[in-house]
Amino acid sequence: MPELRKDPVSGRWVIIASDRNNRPNLFPKVGPSPRTDPAVCPFCPGHEEETPSELYALRAPGTRPDHAGWTVRSMPNKFPALRIEGDLNREGVGVYDKMNGVGAHEVIVETPNHDEDLVDLSPERIAAVFEVCQIRVNDLANDERFRYVLLFKNQGESAGASVGHAHTQLIATPVIPKRVLEELEGARYYYTHRERCIFCDIVKQELSDGKRLVDQTARFIALSPFAARFPFEVWVMPKPHQAAFRHVGPADRLEFATLLRRVLRRHALSIGNAAFNYMFHSSPFGLENNPEYHWHLEIIPRLTSVAGFEWGTGFYINPTPPEESAAAMRAVDPEPLARTMASSTGARETRE
Amino acid sequence: MPELRKDPVSGRWVIIASDRNNRPNLFPKVGPSPRTDPAVCPFCPGHEEETPSELYALRAPGTRPDHAGWTVRSMPNKFPALRIEGDLNREGVGVYDKMNGVGAHEVIVETPNHDEDLVDLSPERIAAVFEVCQIRVNDLANDERFRYVLLFKNQGESAGASVGHAHTQLIATPVIPKRVLEELEGARYYYTHRERCIFCDIVKQELSDGKRLVDQTARFIALSPFAARFPFEVWVMPKPHQAAFRHVGPADRLEFATLLRRVLRRHALSIGNAAFNYMFHSSPFGLENNPEYHWHLEIIPRLTSVAGFEWGTGFYINPTPPEESAAAMRAVDPEPLARTMASSTGARETRE
Repeated sequence: MPELRKDPVSGRWVIIASDRNNRPNLFPKVGPSPRTDPAVCPFCPGHEEETPSELYALRAPGTRPDHAGWTVRSMPNKFPALRIEGDLNREGVGVYDKMNGVGAHEVIVETPNHDEDLVDLSPERIAAVFEVCQIRVNDLANDERFRYVLLFKNQGESAGASVGHAHTQLIATPVIPKRVLEELEGARYYYTHRERCIFCDIVKQELSDGKRLVDQTARFIALSPFAARFPFEVWVMPKPHQAAFRHVGPADRLEFATLLRRVLRRHALSIGNAAFNYMFHSSPFGLENNPEYHWHLEIIPRLTSVAGFEWGTGFYINPTPPEESAAAMRAVDPEPLARTMASSTGARETRE
Repeated sequence: MPELRKDPVSGRWVIIASDRNNRPNLFPKVGPSPRTDPAVCPFCPGHEEETPSELYALRAPGTRPDHAGWTVRSMPNKFPALRIEGDLNREGVGVYDKMNGVGAHEVIVETPNHDEDLVDLSPERIAAVFEVCQIRVNDLANDERFRYVLLFKNQGESAGASVGHAHTQLIATPVIPKRVLEELEGARYYYTHRERCIFCDIVKQELSDGKRLVDQTARFIALSPFAARFPFEVWVMPKPHQAAFRHVGPADRLEFATLLRRVLRRHALSIGNAAFNYMFHSSPFGLENNPEYHWHLEIIPRLTSVAGFEWGTGFYINPTPPEESAAAMRAVDPEPLARTMASSTGARETRE
C-alpha cells in the first residue's frame, strides 16, 4: 500500500509509492553528462576574459584578478536572470503586478581543474568554496534592495547545468521567494504552539529513530527526509540551532564540508554520477536571529521526471521510500571511493 | 532589463528574462520522442489483457469490454501511485503526519491508433476523449474519500510519459492539493475585495489588450499568461464564468476541443513536437458552484529545464516573454498543418 506523507514544515504531501519501483524505465536519466571540451570552457583558468570581471577569488599570492592563479573564483553570470543596476519601479497593469528585474546572479567556480567535481575536492577545498559563497552573500546583504539570496548548484545537463565545469550559483531577489515564505510560515506555526524550532525537533527525532539517517558528524546530520520528494533526496543540517548559513564560522564550515563530501560520495556509490541540484535554505536578511527557522542544504538527484501530476498538484510521487534510500547510502563506505577515483583519474597526483 | 511579474492568483513570481534568449542551448529538449513499437504497446487494440480491466469505453456496437472495437478507453493505471482500496488511517509519527495512499489513478487512452497524437484527432474525437474524462471524474465524485481529481497529460519522454501511445491520466486524492488550495485562496482573496472572479477579469483584460491572446472561439479563449513560467505556455479557459470542468456540457465540450486542437497545432508549428504537460485546474468536489474560481487548462511545453533556482524559490525564469510566444503562435495558420501532416503520415487516409 502506498503511503501519503506530509512535510511538517511546508505542508507538502508526498506519495511514497514503492510499488512503482517495479515500473519499467524507473530511473531513465541516470548516467554522467558528457564533459565539455576544456579548450572552449569559459570557467577554465586562462579564459577569464570570457566571463564578466571577478567579484572575489581565492588566489595565489602575486597573481592578478581575472588571470590564472585562483582556486575559487566568483563573478557575475554572463547571462543573468536579474540585473544589478536600477530601481524596482513597482507597477500595476490592470489585474497584474510587475517590477523591474533587479537582483544579482553570480557564479562561484569551485575548482580551476576542468575534470574535478565538488565530490572530488578535499574537505578543506569544499569549505573554501563555501567561504567564498558566504563572502558574496554577506556583501549582497548590504544592498537594501535585496531580501534574500539563494545559493544553489545545478550539476549535470538534466539538472539544468549549461556549463560542465563545476560551479555553484547565487541569485539575490528583491522579494522573499514563495517557497521560503511557506517554510518560514510553517516553522512559525510550529514555534507558536510549542516554542521549539521544528527543525531542531526533526534532528532529535531522526537521530533517535535512525531509519532515515544517512551520515553524521559531531555537529551536523545528513538524512533522507520523512516526506522525501525524490529517491535519494538528502538534507544536511546543523544539529544545534542555526538560522542562517551566511553566519557559519570556519570550524563549522569545515565540518559541514566534510559531511557534504561524504554524502556526495555515498550518492555517487549508490546511484552513479546522476545529475543533481542542491539548494541552501536559510533565513532571509534581517531575520538571522530567528529562533523558529534552521538553515539546511537540500540535495535532489534528478532520477525521476516531474510531470503533469506534480505540476498540477504540488504533490510528489516518490517510488523509493527514504528509509530505503538512507539504508542504501549508509551501506556504502564513502572513503575507499576517494582513493579509487583519485588513482583512476589521476586528478590528485597530477594537480595537487 | 528583465521584468519580475506576479501571477495574480497564486502569487508566484516569474522572471521574464528575454536577454537569456541569447544563451547557448536555450531549448535543448526540442524534438519528438521516438515512437515505441506498436507490437509491444499495452494501449493498442488487441492488447487489452495487458492492462487492468476497463472502467468505461466508447466502443462500436456489439464489441465486448476489454476487446478491440473502442475509440476511447479508460482503465486503472497498471502501476498506480495511489490505491483504490482501503481507509485513510490518518496517523502521527512524532512531528510527522501520514495516511494510507488511498486514491484512484486511471488512464484514458485517446485513440486506438498508435501513431496518432491528440493534435491529430478531429474536434469531435477530442471532445469524446474529454467526455470519457468527465464520466470518470463524475463517477469518482461519488466516492466520499476523495476531495479532488486532477486530469493531466504527459506527452513525450521529457514530460514524464512512459508509454508513447496517446493518453490522458487522472489521479483522485483524499486531500485538496497544495497548488489547488493556493489558487483557491488567491481567487477568494480577490473575490472578497471586489466581488468578481479574478479569472473573469483576466479574460476581459486579455481580450481587450490582445497582446497575449493566442486564439479564441465565441465562448473560449487561449492566452499565454502574463506571468508565464515557460516559453509558449498557454492557458485555455471559458469566457463566461464556469467553476468546474466536470459539469461542462456537450456544446461547450466540442467548442473547447475545437480551440484546444487549434492551440496544439499552433504549438506544433511554432516549436515542433516538443514534449508537454497539460493539467486541468478545476474546483474541488462540493465547490462546483464557486463564484470565485474558474476552471482552465494549463499547457506547459518542456523546452527549458527546471533547476536549482526554481526548486529553491518557487520563482521561474522564462527567457521568452508571453507576448512573443503569443505573437509567434498567432502568426501561424493552424489549419494547413492538418492537411500536410495527414498526407505526410498517411494517418487520415488509412484510418478514417
